Amino acid sequence: MEGDPTLRLRVFDLNCWAIRYLSKRRQERVRLIGNVLRREGFDLVLLQEVWSEQDYSDLKVKLGGCYPFSHYFRSGVIGSGLCVFSRFPILDTLLYQYSLNGYPYMLQHGDWFCGKSVGLVIIKISGIIFNVYVTHLHAEYCREKDAYLPHRLVQAWELAQFIRHTSKAADVVLLGGDLNMHPEDVGIRLLRGWTGLRDAFAEAARFEGCEDGCTLVPNNCFTVKTELLPFPLGIRIDYILYKAVSSFTVKCEELKTTTGTAPGMDIPFSDHEAVMATLHIQRQGRAAGAPLGAAEPTLADVVTEARTEVGVGLRAAQQQRYSAGRMAVLALLLLLLQALAALGVLAGLAAGQPFPKLSFSLLAFLAIGVLLLATGLHLFHTMEVKMLQGTEEQMRMVLRALQERPSDG
Amino acid sequence: MEGDPTLRLRVFDLNCWAIRYLSKRRQERVRLIGNVLRREGFDLVLLQEVWSEQDYSDLKVKLGGCYPFSHYFRSGVIGSGLCVFSRFPILDTLLYQYSLNGYPYMLQHGDWFCGKSVGLVIIKISGIIFNVYVTHLHAEYCREKDAYLPHRLVQAWELAQFIRHTSKAADVVLLGGDLNMHPEDVGIRLLRGWTGLRDAFAEAARFEGCEDGCTLVPNNCFTVKTELLPFPLGIRIDYILYKAVSSFTVKCEELKTTTGTAPGMDIPFSDHEAVMATLHIQRQGRAAGAPLGAAEPTLADVVTEARTEVGVGLRAAQQQRYSAGRMAVLALLLLLLQALAALGVLAGLAAGQPFPKLSFSLLAFLAIGVLLLATGLHLFHTMEVKMLQGTEEQMRMVLRALQERPSDG
Repeated sequence: MEGDPTLRLRVFDLNCWAIRYLSKRRQERVRLIGNVLRREGFDLVLLQEVWSEQDYSDLKVKLGGCYPFSHYFRSGVIGSGLCVFSRFPILDTLLYQYSLNGYPYMLQHGDWFCGKSVGLVIIKISGIIFNVYVTHLHAEYCREKDAYLPHRLVQAWELAQFIRHTSKAADVVLLGGDLNMHPEDVGIRLLRGWTGLRDAFAEAARFEGCEDGCTLVPNNCFTVKTELLPFPLGIRIDYILYKAVSSFTVKCEELKTTTGTAPGMDIPFSDHEAVMATLHIQRQGRAAGAPLGAAEPTLADVVTEARTEVGVGLRAAQQQRYSAGRMAVLALLLLLLQALAALGVLAGLAAGQPFPKLSFSLLAFLAIGVLLLATGLHLFHTMEVKMLQGTEEQMRMVLRALQERPSDG
Repeated sequence: MEGDPTLRLRVFDLNCWAIRYLSKRRQERVRLIGNVLRREGFDLVLLQEVWSEQDYSDLKVKLGGCYPFSHYFRSGVIGSGLCVFSRFPILDTLLYQYSLNGYPYMLQHGDWFCGKSVGLVIIKISGIIFNVYVTHLHAEYCREKDAYLPHRLVQAWELAQFIRHTSKAADVVLLGGDLNMHPEDVGIRLLRGWTGLRDAFAEAARFEGCEDGCTLVPNNCFTVKTELLPFPLGIRIDYILYKAVSSFTVKCEELKTTTGTAPGMDIPFSDHEAVMATLHIQRQGRAAGAPLGAAEPTLADVVTEARTEVGVGLRAAQQQRYSAGRMAVLALLLLLLQALAALGVLAGLAAGQPFPKLSFSLLAFLAIGVLLLATGLHLFHTMEVKMLQGTEEQMRMVLRALQERPSDG
């Protein structure tokens, strides 16, 4: 390391849990976050769940001095919640919204309304091009029966594809965010395997913080303790990942997490712990990168595993599409039947009044409601099926390429 | 040109107008398209509006011999309609769905359901990396009062951004598709200015086909003649664009369009004319590219013009969001009033039965319907506002960068 000039980069990542009206002590915590960012003077700050643009604007004003460059990514009904603050000029940005992101009717899980995305900012520091990605994947509400696993896998796949396709001119790739996956989960193995990204926690020369690098810990007064019962130490779902794409090396000198409360405070910054990495970037003669050749059999296994899970999701989505379609047809039939009966009465075929007007009208309205709802659901699940099929096919293509590669030389 | 080895690439682009149950003589035309593609043996075929996966599969089977590689891009409810057939292996693919694409309630215009996207396939021919993009932007239904202009501009912008960010490792960039924009429209100037793509029609050494390169012509028996009344020659909205990114040059040797009927047939392939380009790609010593420096003042003007249009769309979307929100609040108030009245009756405050049950229930159902609909619209227009704001901000950032560049050196 010595001899050559190295660049030292301090990166801060946090899921801020700043949901207007819902998150506890939000404004106070956003102020605290602003304070620590100003005091510590990181080079790069990657935030998630900054749902309120007002919070972003407040942070922007507060941090203007030490982080003159920033970007807020807009998407979905509520927003993407993603933003970046930087000491160095942001040259360009791009947002990619994941094609699947839960269900609009799962109001209690709200993910669909957030337009979950990955944001890219391009930054040049000392002539080195950094592609910095910030993202937040679909939450896991029940680990035993995780209905959102296929959606999260599609997101992990799209994230990996987006990074691969957009980072070809970058010297260094950084990804920070709440991936909502444990380190051994198939989605994170897929992301790491397919992009070659390394886990700052695993690579760090020094670590300080929650045991095992956990970022959702029982020690934090805002976490839901029952959800963490199976994990007495907590779970690690927030990451800083990196790789050098061309003739550079990146090393993680130090990784830190907060430990339940913000340093010197009585409350935490968020229900998540912050992840802080100190990276060393050095130019070197030969191109660096993970020895992909050796890792390929493993990668094929991971892609196969992910593809199986996407297939499970696909069959579930097809089943739901079918059920919604059948419901719509039944509602339509009921409406037609009612229309026929009403016509019969009008034509004088039936004597007197065979059914009470009120129940008749209520039934018709109910049928119309069910018809509209079921049609909407059918359309939604049709889209879901298409995206799952598309991902499955892409994975199949990649598997074929991985298997053929040795013969291609 | 002579001396150095050159690569000759024949590209075919067509909006196939293959909508199940709606497009006239669809199956016959898809067969015709398959026949000509097999007979002519292009290198690369870019198709749009292949809405039925069955049509794609039929083409795939038929063309397997001469185009062993193909990809169908899935998205939206109906699909993206985009597919690619290639004589050369497809190394990788990526789909980017535009964030805005019309309105779900404009059923007669159907664009929203198509999940309009840009598809990328990466192809390597003789060691040259081609990034090939195929796309289809939102249709223009009324040129005088084009309500979809802001959406199409957002799409053109996202298309340009997607190409810029994903093509950095490419040697040659090709874009084919139905852009639904006339050559002088702001969207196409924006796309060309911001990516440096060149128009094969304008650059072609030889041209053969409809006058002015038009691709929607009165001569075609499937076009709607009244829509083309202001344009006696027709309009040009289907394009093949290209550029060389690194040390390559691309020249368009020849451009052809079909002319109303397919060669040797009594009907056309589609309501659009096909565009066929013969490109010459040659390696050269120095990097080629449009002299961006000189073009920058013009580019700034184009971005400003586009931003103004996006701003107009933003204000319209904000107005619609407000109206939908107000409607939802009114419906909610009506429901609350009814609930109060009903409670009053139940509590015996009102003597007898003050309102007929039937009208009362119908009114309640109506209010619920309006509430749901207006809430849905409000959410939709909130998303629209966010995306328009995001695009406007990105454009503002680019303008600032364009203005600052001279001082940066």
